[in-house]
Amino acid sequence: MTDQLPTDAQIAAALAAVAARPHVTEIYFVACGGSYSIMMPVQYAVDRHGRSIAGHALNAGEFVSRNPARLGATSVVILCSHSGTTPETVEAARFARAKGALTIALTTIPGSPLDQAVEFPVYYRHAPKTFAPDHSPAVLARLTFGILSLRDGCDLAPKLEAALQALPAIVDRAIAAHTDRITAWAEAHKRESVIYMMGSGANYATAYSYAICIFQEMQWIHSAGIHSDEYFHGPFEVTDFDVPFVILRGMGPGRAMDDRAIAFASKFSDRTTVLCAEEMGLGAIDPAVVDHVEHMAFGTILRVYADKLADSRGHPLTVRRYMWKMDY
Amino acid sequence: MTDQLPTDAQIAAALAAVAARPHVTEIYFVACGGSYSIMMPVQYAVDRHGRSIAGHALNAGEFVSRNPARLGATSVVILCSHSGTTPETVEAARFARAKGALTIALTTIPGSPLDQAVEFPVYYRHAPKTFAPDHSPAVLARLTFGILSLRDGCDLAPKLEAALQALPAIVDRAIAAHTDRITAWAEAHKRESVIYMMGSGANYATAYSYAICIFQEMQWIHSAGIHSDEYFHGPFEVTDFDVPFVILRGMGPGRAMDDRAIAFASKFSDRTTVLCAEEMGLGAIDPAVVDHVEHMAFGTILRVYADKLADSRGHPLTVRRYMWKMDY
Repeated sequence: MTDQLPTDAQIAAALAAVAARPHVTEIYFVACGGSYSIMMPVQYAVDRHGRSIAGHALNAGEFVSRNPARLGATSVVILCSHSGTTPETVEAARFARAKGALTIALTTIPGSPLDQAVEFPVYYRHAPKTFAPDHSPAVLARLTFGILSLRDGCDLAPKLEAALQALPAIVDRAIAAHTDRITAWAEAHKRESVIYMMGSGANYATAYSYAICIFQEMQWIHSAGIHSDEYFHGPFEVTDFDVPFVILRGMGPGRAMDDRAIAFASKFSDRTTVLCAEEMGLGAIDPAVVDHVEHMAFGTILRVYADKLADSRGHPLTVRRYMWKMDY
Repeated sequence: MTDQLPTDAQIAAALAAVAARPHVTEIYFVACGGSYSIMMPVQYAVDRHGRSIAGHALNAGEFVSRNPARLGATSVVILCSHSGTTPETVEAARFARAKGALTIALTTIPGSPLDQAVEFPVYYRHAPKTFAPDHSPAVLARLTFGILSLRDGCDLAPKLEAALQALPAIVDRAIAAHTDRITAWAEAHKRESVIYMMGSGANYATAYSYAICIFQEMQWIHSAGIHSDEYFHGPFEVTDFDVPFVILRGMGPGRAMDDRAIAFASKFSDRTTVLCAEEMGLGAIDPAVVDHVEHMAFGTILRVYADKLADSRGHPLTVRRYMWKMDY
């Protein structure tokens, strides 16, 4: 797809509507599965930088059943569904809108139920082995920092935009530099029945995403996303010489937690793989925002790792046994 | 231990201090591992019932590195460490107090670093195969609903107290009624290398806790806590006839999500175990608060399941290879 999407204009329209609200106290980030995973980094951004606004990332079914007491006219609800048809997310959009919240939804399918359910749709491009500022994690960050800039005096939006412009070339170079490592990793892990993912801060979201969407869903490999500090309070006891971990080493304030997890896992497991944001070239990004974009770089390069793993296993990422094949 | 703890007076002192604050906008619930897991249900309570107050459950290391922008004089920070020595939690207490937050901490060890780091310590009793209103999940709920009552007009505190008084006998009866099932489950699962836990709402926290603290930490069995709705957006593809799940069926608003997960997992896995709050007698609890206490019943009965599993495996729950045995 090379057509120009209306993404920039849609983001601007959504932000203008947020600016026009008399009062905004919360942003709810609501979706399911892979789309939920990309909501955690923007909650992280609001936690770190929102003074008058609180952020909450919730699975869409959980959001509706939890029925937050603060949801209402002072809320912005940002949703995402790739197909725009995820029933829980469509229901969440209708639920939030009926409560008077301002609703914004990301989807790739104009005319989809989610597109029609919300006041402000934003279309994004999906091309998982490359990165671009119109991909969903970037669109979410632009919306979030846009709101924090408009309503909360946060001045990081221009730095975020610059980082998103610089990121595609950084990611392409990192993937090219990892070619041999990716092939070796895929061959070395093709018979694993369990692979754990680990990270902290916004990168925890990427660990969660790859655990549930790539390893469990697309490769039928047991997995869990483990937070780098939580690791030491239970999960680390499962570490052994033959237990594989993939650990994301960020450059933000969580780095010391990642380094501690890497040191421990590397000592007791022979199958620890580290993806290091610094080694991938993220040092070129402004340190003020690097912790908000490095997960986008990790997510993209990990998709190339996943592709190679699928090749080595003879189990394409597109194969499913249940998803989309039956009612559930 | 049969001595009277000063828990009630300590809760009252902490609540009086919260009442005296000029303004309260957030409660941060901060801890690590098993203690972090019991913070999620109280965030759930604030999400559901807090109108003027927002709730945030965070791992203690993540809390400090994330450095929330809203943390300050209008924040209450509630922490927990069994031993009172968890370094990340002690650091988080000092960090929060230095920012001007009101700090409250649960611990079993008077005089511990955490006890000394906060303004308002609250001691709790630990006896995991029984339940009592001075156990940590109950103390957290009493503090949280106390704050919501004082500052937010929520009228559920008396119903919560009544539920906590009724719960010990309900839990004892449920455990007695499950005796044969517990033995059979432990024998049937003693050779498993993976056991997944599942739940929604506050019960997700119990699923997480048992995945990381019991299966991974105390039994060296691979595991993950899966949210009942997230299951359908990735993890369910790992389901097969021989993959074990333990699913918590609540009586709160998340029940439909649990039932959907139970129906699917039971159809495709021969090793699905359901713990049903209703069957366990939770129907005797006021429906207005049952979703805030059922996780306490699940957590207690699951500890008896864990004990039996440990017996069947010849791997006591007290055995560790790393925890407390080395520096890490």
